[in-house]
Amino acid sequence: MEPDRLAEGFILFSTVLLMAMIVALYLWLRKRDTGTERMREIARHIHVGANAFLRREFLTIAPFVAVLALLLLIAMPGESWKIALGFVVGAAFSLLAVFIGMNAAVLANVRTTSAARSSAGQALLVAFRGGGVMGLTIVALNLLGISVLSVLFGVGSNNPQTIHSLVGFGFGASFAALFAQLGGGIFTKGADIAADLVGKIEQGIPEDDPRNAAVIADQVGDNVGDVAGRGADLFESSADNLVATMIVGISFIPVYGWMAVLFPLLSRAIGAVGAVLGIMAVRGTEKRDPIASMNIGFIVTALFSIVSFFFLGKYVMGDIRLFYCLVLGVLTAVVVSLLVQFYTGIKMRPVKEIAEGGVSGVAINLIYGFAWGMESAVVLKIVVAVVNVIAFYIMGGGLPGILGVTAATLGITEMEGIIMAADAFGPIADNASGIAEMSGLGPQVRRAGDMLDAAGNIAKAITKGYGMTCALMTSVVILFAYLISAAEVIHISNAGLESFVTFGGADPDAIALSVIRGLSLAHPLNLAALMIGSTIPFLFTSQAMKAVGRTAFKMVDEVRRQFREIPGIMTGAGQPDYSRCVDIGTRQALIEMIGPTLVGVAFPVTVGFLMGPWALAFYLIGVKIIGATLAIFMFNAGGAWDNAKKYIEEGHFGGKGSEPHRASVIGDTLGDPLKDTAGPSLHILIKLQNILAIALLPLFYHLDGVWRLWE
Amino acid sequence: MEPDRLAEGFILFSTVLLMAMIVALYLWLRKRDTGTERMREIARHIHVGANAFLRREFLTIAPFVAVLALLLLIAMPGESWKIALGFVVGAAFSLLAVFIGMNAAVLANVRTTSAARSSAGQALLVAFRGGGVMGLTIVALNLLGISVLSVLFGVGSNNPQTIHSLVGFGFGASFAALFAQLGGGIFTKGADIAADLVGKIEQGIPEDDPRNAAVIADQVGDNVGDVAGRGADLFESSADNLVATMIVGISFIPVYGWMAVLFPLLSRAIGAVGAVLGIMAVRGTEKRDPIASMNIGFIVTALFSIVSFFFLGKYVMGDIRLFYCLVLGVLTAVVVSLLVQFYTGIKMRPVKEIAEGGVSGVAINLIYGFAWGMESAVVLKIVVAVVNVIAFYIMGGGLPGILGVTAATLGITEMEGIIMAADAFGPIADNASGIAEMSGLGPQVRRAGDMLDAAGNIAKAITKGYGMTCALMTSVVILFAYLISAAEVIHISNAGLESFVTFGGADPDAIALSVIRGLSLAHPLNLAALMIGSTIPFLFTSQAMKAVGRTAFKMVDEVRRQFREIPGIMTGAGQPDYSRCVDIGTRQALIEMIGPTLVGVAFPVTVGFLMGPWALAFYLIGVKIIGATLAIFMFNAGGAWDNAKKYIEEGHFGGKGSEPHRASVIGDTLGDPLKDTAGPSLHILIKLQNILAIALLPLFYHLDGVWRLWE
Repeated sequence: MEPDRLAEGFILFSTVLLMAMIVALYLWLRKRDTGTERMREIARHIHVGANAFLRREFLTIAPFVAVLALLLLIAMPGESWKIALGFVVGAAFSLLAVFIGMNAAVLANVRTTSAARSSAGQALLVAFRGGGVMGLTIVALNLLGISVLSVLFGVGSNNPQTIHSLVGFGFGASFAALFAQLGGGIFTKGADIAADLVGKIEQGIPEDDPRNAAVIADQVGDNVGDVAGRGADLFESSADNLVATMIVGISFIPVYGWMAVLFPLLSRAIGAVGAVLGIMAVRGTEKRDPIASMNIGFIVTALFSIVSFFFLGKYVMGDIRLFYCLVLGVLTAVVVSLLVQFYTGIKMRPVKEIAEGGVSGVAINLIYGFAWGMESAVVLKIVVAVVNVIAFYIMGGGLPGILGVTAATLGITEMEGIIMAADAFGPIADNASGIAEMSGLGPQVRRAGDMLDAAGNIAKAITKGYGMTCALMTSVVILFAYLISAAEVIHISNAGLESFVTFGGADPDAIALSVIRGLSLAHPLNLAALMIGSTIPFLFTSQAMKAVGRTAFKMVDEVRRQFREIPGIMTGAGQPDYSRCVDIGTRQALIEMIGPTLVGVAFPVTVGFLMGPWALAFYLIGVKIIGATLAIFMFNAGGAWDNAKKYIEEGHFGGKGSEPHRASVIGDTLGDPLKDTAGPSLHILIKLQNILAIALLPLFYHLDGVWRLWE
Repeated sequence: MEPDRLAEGFILFSTVLLMAMIVALYLWLRKRDTGTERMREIARHIHVGANAFLRREFLTIAPFVAVLALLLLIAMPGESWKIALGFVVGAAFSLLAVFIGMNAAVLANVRTTSAARSSAGQALLVAFRGGGVMGLTIVALNLLGISVLSVLFGVGSNNPQTIHSLVGFGFGASFAALFAQLGGGIFTKGADIAADLVGKIEQGIPEDDPRNAAVIADQVGDNVGDVAGRGADLFESSADNLVATMIVGISFIPVYGWMAVLFPLLSRAIGAVGAVLGIMAVRGTEKRDPIASMNIGFIVTALFSIVSFFFLGKYVMGDIRLFYCLVLGVLTAVVVSLLVQFYTGIKMRPVKEIAEGGVSGVAINLIYGFAWGMESAVVLKIVVAVVNVIAFYIMGGGLPGILGVTAATLGITEMEGIIMAADAFGPIADNASGIAEMSGLGPQVRRAGDMLDAAGNIAKAITKGYGMTCALMTSVVILFAYLISAAEVIHISNAGLESFVTFGGADPDAIALSVIRGLSLAHPLNLAALMIGSTIPFLFTSQAMKAVGRTAFKMVDEVRRQFREIPGIMTGAGQPDYSRCVDIGTRQALIEMIGPTLVGVAFPVTVGFLMGPWALAFYLIGVKIIGATLAIFMFNAGGAWDNAKKYIEEGHFGGKGSEPHRASVIGDTLGDPLKDTAGPSLHILIKLQNILAIALLPLFYHLDGVWRLWE
C-alpha cells in the first residue's frame, strides 16, 4: 500500500475508534447510580431547562444558517454549492457535537453527586468521563466532517486546489459557535449575577439555596454556557485550524507530496488516539489528589503524541525539523499552563495581592485585579510571539518557515481532546456540588464536592490558557492561509509566495510585487484598516457586557418578584418557579446573541468590499492581536478575582463576611462576565472573521468592490 | 523680502507676542485679591507642597537626563552632540514650561476662590487666565526651542537633512513628560483615593474636610498631576508633532520648496496668535453660563485659524488642497469633542445607564461603565481612521497623500494653546472650591464654585477627547517620519519613498524594494513585533495601576495613623500633619515613576536591536494602536463613572447615601486611576517610543544588531 493510503487509513481508523469510545463512555455513564428522589428531581429540572435552551437556540440559529447558505450559493463565484454545503455541514456538526457533549455532561452531573456519597475517586471518574464525551465528540465530528466533505468534493492529490472548498466547513462551525457561546455565555452570567445578587446579597441565603428562583437557571447556565459554549468554541478552533493548515499545506506539495495536506489530519488523528488513551488512564482512586489523577491523563496523551510525532516527522514526512516544531508546540502548551496557574492560582502572589487590596477598600481590589490581569496578557503574548519566531527559523525562514509555524500550532492543538475533557469536568463538578447542596446531602459528600470543585477550577484555568494560546498561534497560520488563498485567486506561483515572507529573496513576479506592496504597512488605507480592526474586540466586548447586564436585570426583577409574591418561599412552604426564571433568561439571552453575531459578520464583509482584500488582512490582524490580548486579560483577571474571593473565604484577611470579603465579591462579579461571556466569545469572533474572510476572498477579488478605486 | 524670510519673521513675531502675553497674564494674576488669612494659609500649604514635589521630581529626573545625554553623545553615529544637546534642551524646556504653568495655576487657585466671593464671572476669568499661562507657555517654549536649536544646528534650506537632528528635542520633551505625568499622576490618585477612603468612607466626614490629613495632598495632587502632568503631555505632543511634520516636510521640498518645512511652524504660529485672541475674548460676566464664555474663546481661535489657513494654503503654499486638509483637522477636533461629550456627559444616555445600573448592584454599574467606555473607543478610532483616509485621498494618494494626513494633524493640533488653557481651568476651579470648603466660606461662594466645577468637568472631557485625537492622528504622521528618516539613513530617493505608499506605482529601486518587503505584514518577525508592541500598553497600564495602589496604601496607613494618634483631631482641637502626608506620597510616587519610564525606553531599544528597524515599525504601530484604544477607553469610562456619581448626587436613583450612590462611588474610584494616571501616561508612552525610535534609527541601522541575522 502506498503511504498516502496508509495515512488515510489511519485517519479513518482513529475516527472509528473515537466513535466507539464515545458510545462506550455514554453507556457507562447511563449505568451509574442517580441517587435519591430529590437528587433526581433537581437533575430533571436541570436536564429539562438545558435542553429547552438548546432547542430554542438551535431554532434561532437555523434560519440564519439557511439564509447565509442561500446567499453563499447565489453570490459566490465558481462551484458555490461546495461552500454553501460545507457551511451547513459545519454548523450542523458543531451543534450536534454540542448536543451530544452537553447531554453527557448533564447525565454526569447527578451521577457525580451520587458517586461522591461513597467515594471522591469514583466521583472524579464519573465527572471526567462525562467531560470526555464532549472532548472526543469534537475531534470525531471534525475528522468525520472533513473526511465526508473531501469525498463529496472529490478532494485529491490530482486536484489540490479543491481543498479551498473545505473552508465553508470552518465558516459554518464558527458561525454556529459564535451564536452558541454568546447565547450560553449571556444566559449563564445573567443567571449567575441574578442568583448571587438577590440570593446572597439581598436575602442573605447561601449559594445554591433551593429557595432562590434563579438557582436552577444558574445550574442550567453552567451546562449551556460553560459546557456547550466551550464545546462549540473548541469544535470551531479545531475545524478552522484543520482547514487553514490544510490550505497552507497546498504550498508544500512540491516538497512533501500529498502528505503535506494530510499532515494536519494525521497529527489530529494521533491526538485523538492519544486522548482515548489519556482518558482511559485517568482512574478514580482515594489515594491521589484529583489533579494528580488528571495529570496522569495529560502525561499519557502528551507522551504518546510526542513519540508518534517523532515517527510522523522523521519517517512519514521525512523532515525531522517538523518534529521539533511539533514538540515546540506541545511545550508551549505546558509553559502557558504554568503561567496561567501563576497568574490565577489561589496560593500565588497575584491572587494574594488582590485579596489583600480589599483591606484598603473595593477600589484597590479592583485596581490590582486589573493590573495583574493586564500583566498576564503581556507575558503570554510575548511567549507566543517568541515561539512563532523560533518555529519560523527552525525551518530556516522563508516559505518553509511558515510550515514550521503551522507544525507548532498543530503541536499545541492536538491535545485538545483531553483538554476539553478536563474543561467540561469543571462545570460538571460545579453542578454536582450544587446538586449536593440543594439535596441537603451530608458534609462528607460536600467535602468530596469541594475537592472536585477546587480541582475543576485549576482545570478550567489551564484550559483557558491553553485555548488562548491555540487561538493566537492559529491566528498567524490563518493569515498565511488567507494569503495562500489569495495567491490561488490571483494566480501567484510558489516563488511569488516565497517573496511575501523574505526581506531579500528571489525576484517576485509582477503580480506578487503588487501584493507585497498591498501588504505594506506604509499605506494609510492599511493603517486605517488596522485601526478599525483593533477596535472591533472592544465593540464586541461592549455589546456582550451590555447584554449580560440587561439579561441579569430582567432575571433580578423576576427573582425579586418571586420572593415578594410567592407566599412561604423563605420558610420552604412555597416553591419558587424555577422554569419561569429559566424561560425569561433564555428568551433574553437568545435575543441578545443575534446583534453581536451579525456585527461580527458584517464588519469584515464591509471592510473587504470597501477597502479591498489587502487592507482586510490588516483589519484581521488588528482584530486578532487585540482580541487575544483582551481575552487573556479578561480570563486571567476574572480568574484571579474569583480565586481572591476563595482565598479570603479560606479564612485570610478576615474571612467570610469581612470587608475584604465584600470587596472580593464585587471583584468577582465584575470578573465573571469578562471571563465567561466576553472573553470566550471574543475567541470565537477572531476565528469567525478570519475564516469568513478566506471564504469570501474570491468574491472580494472578483466583484469590483469600491476598493478598486484605491488602486 | 523673500517669502521664506517673511514666514520666519512671522514665527518669530508670534513667539515674542506669546511671551509678552504670558508676562502680562502673570502680572495680572498676581494683582488679584487673595482673600482671608485662612484662605492664604491653605494656599500657602498647597504652594509649598506642590513646589516641594516639583523640586524633588526635577532632582530625580536630572541624573537620568544626564546619563542618557551622555549615552547619546557616545553611542550615536555622526554629529551626536546635536542629538544630545537637543535632548537636554527638550527636557529642560518641558520642565520649565511645567514649572511656570503650574505656579500660575497655584497663584490662580486662591484668587479664584476670592473672586468667587463677589462674582462667578470674575472667578471664571481668573481661573481661565490662570490656565492660559500654561497654554501659552507650552506653545511659546516649543517654538522657541525649535528656533534656537535650528540656529545652533545651522538648519537651512541648503542642507535640509539637518532637520533630523531636531529629533533630540522631541525625545527630551517626551522623556521628561513621561516622568512628570507618571509621578504627578501616581501622586494625585494615591492622595485622592487615600483622602476618600479614610475620610469619606471610614470617618464619614465630607470631601475636602480640613480634619483629613490627606486633604492638602489631594489639592497638591490636582496641581502636580492634572496641571503639571497634562502640561508636560501637551508640550511633548506639540514638540513631537512639530519635529515629525518637519521631517515629513523634507520629502516635499521638491514641490513646495523650503516652505514645506516651515509649514508646520507657520501653522503652529497661527495657532499661537489665535490662542492669544481666544484667551482675550473670554470675559467674565454674570449673564453667561461659564461654558458659553469658554466657547467664545474656542470659536474666536478656530475662526481666526481657518481664515489664516486659507491664506496659508492658497497663497503661501500655493495648494488649496492643504487648506481643505487643515480644515478637516479642525472639524475632526469638533466632532471628537461632541462624541466625548455624549459618552461622558452627565445628561446623556451612557452616564444615566451606568448610574441606573447601580440599582441592581455595584457589578452592573461597573459592567455598564466598562461597556460604554469600550464602545466610545471604537467610535472615536473609526472616526480617526476615516479622517486619515479622507486626508490621504484629498491630496490624491501616494506620497502627496502623506502630506494631506500631516496637514490634517496640524489642523487639529493648532488649537492646543486655548485647549490647554481650558484644561488647566478644570483643576484650578476644582482647587478653588476645595479652598472655599476648607476655609468655611458661605453657600454663595460654594454655588459659584460648583458652577465652575461643573464647567471644569466638561472642559476636561473635551480636552481629553481632543488630546487623544491628536495623539492618534500624530501617530500616523510619526510612522512616516520614521520611514522618511529611514530613507535618509539608507539613501532611498523620493521615487523609492513613493513606492512605499502605492499599490502599483513606479518601479522602486532595489533598496526601496527590500524596505517594502521588510514592511510586509507577511513576515512572522513583523507579526511577532506587532504582537509584542500591542501588549506594551497593557504592561504599562498594569505598572501604573499597581503604583497607584501601593502609593494609596502608604497614604491610607498614614492618614489612619494620624486619626488614631493625634489627639483631638476630630474635634478640631488637634491639627493633622498635612506636610507629612504630602511627603510620604511624594517619596513613593517618585520611586514608582522610575520603573515604567525605563521600561518605556528599554522595549523599543531592545526590539530595534534584536528584530531590526522594520520590525520596530510594526512594534511601534502595535503600541500606538492599542495604546490609543486603551487610553480612550480609560478616559471615557473613567469620566462616565465620575459623572454617573454626580448624576446620582443630583438626586436621581435615591441620591446621596443610597445603595446606587455607594455603587457609583466604587465605579468612580476604579475609574480615577484609569483616567488620570494610566490613560494620560499611555499617551506619553506612545509618543516617547516613537520619537525615541526615530532618534536611534541610525544606530539600529549602522550597528550590526542581532537583527541582521534575519535578513
